[in-house]
Amino acid sequence: MKLPRLATYSVKGDVSFGAVLEGGIVDLSARYAKDYPTLREVIAAGKLVSLAEEAAGRTPDHAFDDITWLPPVPAPEKIICIGVNYPDRNAEYKDGQDAPKYPSMFMRSPRSFVGHDTPLVRPRASAQLDYEGEIVLVIGKAGRHIPESSALDHIAALTLCNEGSVRDWLRHAKFNVTQGKNFDSSGSLGPWLVPYVRESQIADIRLTTQVNGELRQDDRTSRLMFPFRTLINYISAFATLVPGDIIVTGTPTGAGARFDPPRYLKPGDVVEVAAEGIGTLRNGVVDEA
Amino acid sequence: MKLPRLATYSVKGDVSFGAVLEGGIVDLSARYAKDYPTLREVIAAGKLVSLAEEAAGRTPDHAFDDITWLPPVPAPEKIICIGVNYPDRNAEYKDGQDAPKYPSMFMRSPRSFVGHDTPLVRPRASAQLDYEGEIVLVIGKAGRHIPESSALDHIAALTLCNEGSVRDWLRHAKFNVTQGKNFDSSGSLGPWLVPYVRESQIADIRLTTQVNGELRQDDRTSRLMFPFRTLINYISAFATLVPGDIIVTGTPTGAGARFDPPRYLKPGDVVEVAAEGIGTLRNGVVDEA
Repeated sequence: MKLPRLATYSVKGDVSFGAVLEGGIVDLSARYAKDYPTLREVIAAGKLVSLAEEAAGRTPDHAFDDITWLPPVPAPEKIICIGVNYPDRNAEYKDGQDAPKYPSMFMRSPRSFVGHDTPLVRPRASAQLDYEGEIVLVIGKAGRHIPESSALDHIAALTLCNEGSVRDWLRHAKFNVTQGKNFDSSGSLGPWLVPYVRESQIADIRLTTQVNGELRQDDRTSRLMFPFRTLINYISAFATLVPGDIIVTGTPTGAGARFDPPRYLKPGDVVEVAAEGIGTLRNGVVDEA
Repeated sequence: MKLPRLATYSVKGDVSFGAVLEGGIVDLSARYAKDYPTLREVIAAGKLVSLAEEAAGRTPDHAFDDITWLPPVPAPEKIICIGVNYPDRNAEYKDGQDAPKYPSMFMRSPRSFVGHDTPLVRPRASAQLDYEGEIVLVIGKAGRHIPESSALDHIAALTLCNEGSVRDWLRHAKFNVTQGKNFDSSGSLGPWLVPYVRESQIADIRLTTQVNGELRQDDRTSRLMFPFRTLINYISAFATLVPGDIIVTGTPTGAGARFDPPRYLKPGDVVEVAAEGIGTLRNGVVDEA
């Protein structure tokens, strides 16, 4: 059985959420907005699967061409991104340091992301916009001090991220990469949420990034240095995870900055981040107006 | 004339906002919640001063003893903290690096902060909870690419922060300080918002931090390496600032980690962050339950 998929989108400026069928979108906001204003409340109520199943037999309300895809969780409390998590990524830094004992992490604001099929924005400030394809965990069940053994029970859904980065602004400061990771509309989240129901959905899936059809990143989640269980356990040692929280789990080797000369994104490029069982997140690139 | 002050607080678990008078709190939610669910919407509407003035002659609805102070802006879109911004702070790192050209910055989650008079939590994971007194700018007017000349027009209000940090977790990772800056309830924001109306409120004010009555940090905003105008200009080069956004502007030399041996916070300590014209933010310290 194909897993259901749920999306946040807008039609003529009105934001809704719905179920994604083969032929289009079934509007679930029309029926459920009173109980669940957004997918964040659907997640918190543990209703992703049941709402999607309820929609499965219905006729789509919107053709895909009529909607604008938005990041699937509006206004998450936290968007935590993991910095160096696939093999060979540590070596890419060529700083002679051993593999880190703990994951590196930083936060992004919701405004730094667009949804599926909306172009990323190359900012006025830099020509070094780069792609990073990543798998995203969406937290469903709140928790602190979550043991690895039950960590996966806290995942509500999966989605994808192009964790777009502005390379020269990552190293502006003495510490931290905040600036280069938070340009408006420099990354994307989506296209939709796939409810998480079993570990085989994430244990060993292939993650790829293509630019204009050329394969640039290609790795498998079974090779993560800090597996998903470890990330949830570690983050919850300092912070309470709550429904709708987003964990962007790291990117494989092969971002544009790693080529010699670097191959940064330019207007007209098309980036596709894909993972087995989740989908394909596609974005063009435009210059900031 | 004393400037008005506005606070977010709870009474018996219900969250409200109100005006802070000498004798207590005037409940503004009761009258205005329909138009402005929280102070964030009051800020966005530019109504901080007029609502406070409207309350000025009224009888307080709540004694201070009956409320729990909360961080004054609930769920800001962004909480951006500046890393090294007062003189001598760069030298404290003893890494031989020159003063940085751009400010270092990181983000914190709302959940990492408590309000005034609520104890900070020293976590199970570390005995290195430390204080950092800071002045906070609250954004009122949205903007991107804001010139320094008009930057201060985007400030709606001022408040204070104890940007509490867990020192050993700041350096867990290859890059970034995220973990050590985001422990639940490890910092505080408040006690209230003071509307910003003129530059003399921030141009050269004294900022101090005391622990158990002993002065530990003491500096003036006129000595900032990256002045407030510069911060707003720089941040808005990459991100759109929106009403309610929080900029925590950096701490003077003298945090507990800088003593030899370090003087970290322990249960029973009382930390007071104070700035002229804003107020005093006071928090105790307890161990995580």
